[in-house]
Amino acid sequence: MSKVRIAGTGLTRFGRFPDRTGRDLFAEAGLAALDEASVEPGDVEHLYFGNFMGELAEHQGHMGPQMAEAVGVRAPATRYESACASSGVAVREAVRTVRTGEADVVLVGGAERMTNMGTAGATEGLSIAADDLYEIRAGMTFPAAYALMARAYFEEFGGSAEDLAHVAVKNHEHALPNEHAQFRSSITVEEALDAPRIADPLGLYDSCPITDGASAVVLVSDDYAERAGLDAPVAVTGTGQGGDNLALQDREYFARSPATADAAEEAYADAGIGPDDVDVAEVHDCFTIAEVLAVEALGFYDPGEGIGAARRGETTRNGDLPVNLSGGLKAKGHPVGATGVAQVVSLARLLSGTHPRASDAGDPRVGLAHNAGGTVASATVHVLEVVA
Amino acid sequence: MSKVRIAGTGLTRFGRFPDRTGRDLFAEAGLAALDEASVEPGDVEHLYFGNFMGELAEHQGHMGPQMAEAVGVRAPATRYESACASSGVAVREAVRTVRTGEADVVLVGGAERMTNMGTAGATEGLSIAADDLYEIRAGMTFPAAYALMARAYFEEFGGSAEDLAHVAVKNHEHALPNEHAQFRSSITVEEALDAPRIADPLGLYDSCPITDGASAVVLVSDDYAERAGLDAPVAVTGTGQGGDNLALQDREYFARSPATADAAEEAYADAGIGPDDVDVAEVHDCFTIAEVLAVEALGFYDPGEGIGAARRGETTRNGDLPVNLSGGLKAKGHPVGATGVAQVVSLARLLSGTHPRASDAGDPRVGLAHNAGGTVASATVHVLEVVA
Repeated sequence: MSKVRIAGTGLTRFGRFPDRTGRDLFAEAGLAALDEASVEPGDVEHLYFGNFMGELAEHQGHMGPQMAEAVGVRAPATRYESACASSGVAVREAVRTVRTGEADVVLVGGAERMTNMGTAGATEGLSIAADDLYEIRAGMTFPAAYALMARAYFEEFGGSAEDLAHVAVKNHEHALPNEHAQFRSSITVEEALDAPRIADPLGLYDSCPITDGASAVVLVSDDYAERAGLDAPVAVTGTGQGGDNLALQDREYFARSPATADAAEEAYADAGIGPDDVDVAEVHDCFTIAEVLAVEALGFYDPGEGIGAARRGETTRNGDLPVNLSGGLKAKGHPVGATGVAQVVSLARLLSGTHPRASDAGDPRVGLAHNAGGTVASATVHVLEVVA
Repeated sequence: MSKVRIAGTGLTRFGRFPDRTGRDLFAEAGLAALDEASVEPGDVEHLYFGNFMGELAEHQGHMGPQMAEAVGVRAPATRYESACASSGVAVREAVRTVRTGEADVVLVGGAERMTNMGTAGATEGLSIAADDLYEIRAGMTFPAAYALMARAYFEEFGGSAEDLAHVAVKNHEHALPNEHAQFRSSITVEEALDAPRIADPLGLYDSCPITDGASAVVLVSDDYAERAGLDAPVAVTGTGQGGDNLALQDREYFARSPATADAAEEAYADAGIGPDDVDVAEVHDCFTIAEVLAVEALGFYDPGEGIGAARRGETTRNGDLPVNLSGGLKAKGHPVGATGVAQVVSLARLLSGTHPRASDAGDPRVGLAHNAGGTVASATVHVLEVVA
């Protein structure tokens, strides 16, 4: 099997761009990735594309071929939809294709247009990642769902809104030098605790924003990288996917994420590493409690121990395992379909030394990306390593 | 690489079931396939699921985990959306997974709920498979797009509405014994020509109906089939996918389907066969002209020759190459996300002798399934063979 090398990366700025279409956003990110890789659009053999709710936000389905055309690619193009894990799943399929030798060069990306819907419209749109019959019609929104998960966690393991505030403070601080981030302002624990409550115990600063943006990565085989003389030292060495029942009511636990644990187990085995080998991680912090659940399910912490990680400074930029050096979904922003690939972009830049937070991470060799959909009914994990 | 065997198949009846949810429909088809395969839900390692417009029809995204739960599967579950080729793409990914040894047992299916939207609502919903900015806002609907393709074909190669009527008559006649079909009534060429025009030269009988339904197939590895003592003589031996620009305005030709031709070339090479080896085919006849374009792009006919195939009796049930013995999208119905897998179900039953039209096909050994999205901006081709 071929190694799967990251030859190029592209990101738009994340933020409020209500006048830009998904196509426009992806064209920017996709062309940037192709340019960085020195790959011509005609050499791309497949586009793997993640988008969550183009049907509602842009009256547009069938985005695979549309996005291929936007970057000049004439090749099979597939759209993946796994809610907020849409482009994480796209990465997984792209990795498989290069690994098995079916293609030497593929483009994988994602885009989401959201702010044109307004905050209420986007919140309503996001709700379709939950179960319409059993959750949405009962009035559940995603802040409410994650608030239930936070309450369950506090009840089982302890912890407080102040612990969660430390996650938000950390991720805001991490985003400061990130020119792609939606929020580049520090907040304090006091500000986070004083902010309006969205769904108690979660307040405004526990929640990621509504964001427009796009992301792209060019993946190539070892053979291609050698033939083309590419400098592509970072490879995707492990991939995993997990699933769970869609509705929270059908889960055994609210304060566990078995889909993440399953994805991680598969990805670690695939890469031949364990959680202790990870130097830097980008995890799916759509809400602060989500980061806590993630670092536990990924095996970085035992159940009940993740809640204090940011407070203790272990996952901050000077800690043992910096988490979300990009700012995470919380501060970098969360253009849903773009997020999974954006995490891979951030890690590739951290590992190759081109990310503004690269020096904070020391000399990282192994990175982990964790992307989750809904209340973690879907999850993907990817391991990236410096291989040359 | 393992052979990919079809161990079980399931279909709902196709038709108007506005009160049934996509979940309800898929549960029926998925459980039927698992039952036929004698596979327990707990043995399924991945669900590949196609759906086109659940966001609009059911206020539901993230259908992968929802559908997995509906059939008792707790495993990674991915939703594919490539417009009307959604479950064709899902089949392709499922085949890759079994072939590479990543899984021994996978479930692949699709579902679409449409009639609850009403005819106008469904037609409007379907339009998002085209380009919103360049086509939909100009007033284009899918009947209009395919009418443009028919006009371009007539202009380049000749042909008439009467030629197209023969396609509709054939597919209605084929559907007569098919208990899953939406329409089980004969029509005549005169009736087809006298029917109201939808978008000239296409009339009511040139157009497939709005349909609710679901489909499912269990795919297993050779090893698993042997260990479990399964009788699974039909295998998927070839897979291919093609892509084209989304908007018709960006195509060089209207009367060609290069995405289908690319998918076919790949699938034939994969299976080690050519078009002459195919005994029976299910092709994507969302409109009668679509079947004509398909049989040409698949290499069964030279450009300009496909238009007379049904009229000459070559693609009828007694012809040399029976096409759409199930009734096709035209008469069996077209629950969009379910169609690609439904074609595979029909072929598997034809090849294994359990389809009501099996005897019409003689003793077929090789079948071909062709699924297309939009105005064939996406296409998949699968080759099925009797291998034991």
